[in-house]
Amino acid sequence: MTLPRIGITIGDQGGIGPEIVLKVLESPQLPEGDYVLFGSLSFITREAERRRLTAALQRCRIADVASAPGLPAARKPTAESGRASFAALQRGVEAARQGELEALVTAPISKHSWHMAGISWAGHTDYLEHLFPGAIMAFFSERLNVALYTHHLPLAQALSKIRIKPLEDFLLRLHAYARPLGGQDLQLMLSGLNPHAGEGGMLGNEETEVILPALESARRRGVPVSGPYPPDIVCRKALDRPNCLVVSLYHDQGLVAFKLIAFETGVNVTLGLPFIRTSPDHGTAFDIAGHDQADPGSMLAAVRLAHRFAVPPT
Amino acid sequence: MTLPRIGITIGDQGGIGPEIVLKVLESPQLPEGDYVLFGSLSFITREAERRRLTAALQRCRIADVASAPGLPAARKPTAESGRASFAALQRGVEAARQGELEALVTAPISKHSWHMAGISWAGHTDYLEHLFPGAIMAFFSERLNVALYTHHLPLAQALSKIRIKPLEDFLLRLHAYARPLGGQDLQLMLSGLNPHAGEGGMLGNEETEVILPALESARRRGVPVSGPYPPDIVCRKALDRPNCLVVSLYHDQGLVAFKLIAFETGVNVTLGLPFIRTSPDHGTAFDIAGHDQADPGSMLAAVRLAHRFAVPPT
Repeated sequence: MTLPRIGITIGDQGGIGPEIVLKVLESPQLPEGDYVLFGSLSFITREAERRRLTAALQRCRIADVASAPGLPAARKPTAESGRASFAALQRGVEAARQGELEALVTAPISKHSWHMAGISWAGHTDYLEHLFPGAIMAFFSERLNVALYTHHLPLAQALSKIRIKPLEDFLLRLHAYARPLGGQDLQLMLSGLNPHAGEGGMLGNEETEVILPALESARRRGVPVSGPYPPDIVCRKALDRPNCLVVSLYHDQGLVAFKLIAFETGVNVTLGLPFIRTSPDHGTAFDIAGHDQADPGSMLAAVRLAHRFAVPPT
Repeated sequence: MTLPRIGITIGDQGGIGPEIVLKVLESPQLPEGDYVLFGSLSFITREAERRRLTAALQRCRIADVASAPGLPAARKPTAESGRASFAALQRGVEAARQGELEALVTAPISKHSWHMAGISWAGHTDYLEHLFPGAIMAFFSERLNVALYTHHLPLAQALSKIRIKPLEDFLLRLHAYARPLGGQDLQLMLSGLNPHAGEGGMLGNEETEVILPALESARRRGVPVSGPYPPDIVCRKALDRPNCLVVSLYHDQGLVAFKLIAFETGVNVTLGLPFIRTSPDHGTAFDIAGHDQADPGSMLAAVRLAHRFAVPPT
């Protein structure tokens, strides 16, 4: 049996990324795979030695990204670590795009480091959306799965994006992207926008004038989608139903629920790329970096999910 | 010791209200109090007999609201049950306003029944806000407490209400109303509006231009309030901290979290009335009415919270 090839970037060298990546590679819960680390070989080797996690290096190959060879971990944003984490991401994406990897798992980067290095992307997903227009930000966990129609926009701007045709197109794309992952019985559950999903027009008319028409068009075109549900009910209805994927119209509509339910085990998934991409649902945690206290739970969940979704080469 | 006087309305006669009220009055967890039921004496008596819950009637007095004497339970909205539940609410509110009750607990009404009866209020809170301008809708539970700056408005309208002076006034009122209930160490935690609370202006400027100035003014005037927090983090931070009250800027920002955390034990509390008012966090549930299946948990929590907050007459 051929093993799935899974790339892992180590993230910002000053954050907890390198630590949790090495811990995950030593975890007994790591599924068998062909793992490739993207980062500075000398940095990774030294970190593994210093943390007594050298066994991790026997379970992976290292694709040396030499742009920040001997960099000590600063535990704060720096231009050097920004350049290094971006270079590693570019290398990982390129390898996946070339078909050398089935999946890419990205440890947390610092957008402040990127900013200091003159890199303008607000994060991994922004960069990936630029390379692959139409990509979708989604979150998966044991108990709840959520996809975001809009994400890093001011709320007032997000509201202005709720229009029939773009929402219908989004539902069609989401279905096409998620079906290979969610199985044949995938169900999309679309949230309304207003309290009680507008309560028949008494509390807003986006549901009747925009959301329902988009939903019905998508359904006619074969998308298994129901709703619009009251926003404060839909995540509860979808809880513990692994084939259900909630469609949230804006960032916090979905993430208020997701972060409560899956704080340390949630996985960020970018749908619509020519490869699988996952990442843990937390940041660089500079405040605890270097203290061996970082919990690798979410990173492990991200690697396991990438492994589950990845189809190995035949 | 004088017992607190607590009024209870039975809600819509066709819903689960009468059943859960009688079950609560028979519960061993009912705290000792002077309970007064507001509803049709003949209806209540017959329901208690039919359901073999007559022991409940020994733990309360009945303030007969005779407008719907022999009405059979229709298990759906009717004009008769709308008139009856509204009349009972008016009587209960009047008794509380006159100082005959310290607290009023309201079982679920049907706004469709009210509508059929020509009553225009969208619900209990709407009616109470009309009688007592400045009243505030809040939700309390074992693990999370939330107050809503705006509630039953279309989301776009709710956004337009976020202005410095009204928000500052809201924080001052909320503090004045909630302190007698929450104790001296009450902490208000104010949510931001945009993803990541605007991320320093990159994802919206309401936080820097409106929310923070309102917060700082309120703090200068003695309100213990912190924030603005990212909306998808604030409820997690406030979890299991009974002295914390999250301030949500719109309906679903607070209720997505509250309904996930406290679905069957949450209590709706109206703050800023001259008496305590609580109610269960669910509706009439016509679909299960009359089948003795209704869970009185949230109604019991509402009565217990009213009892805890009520200061008996001296």
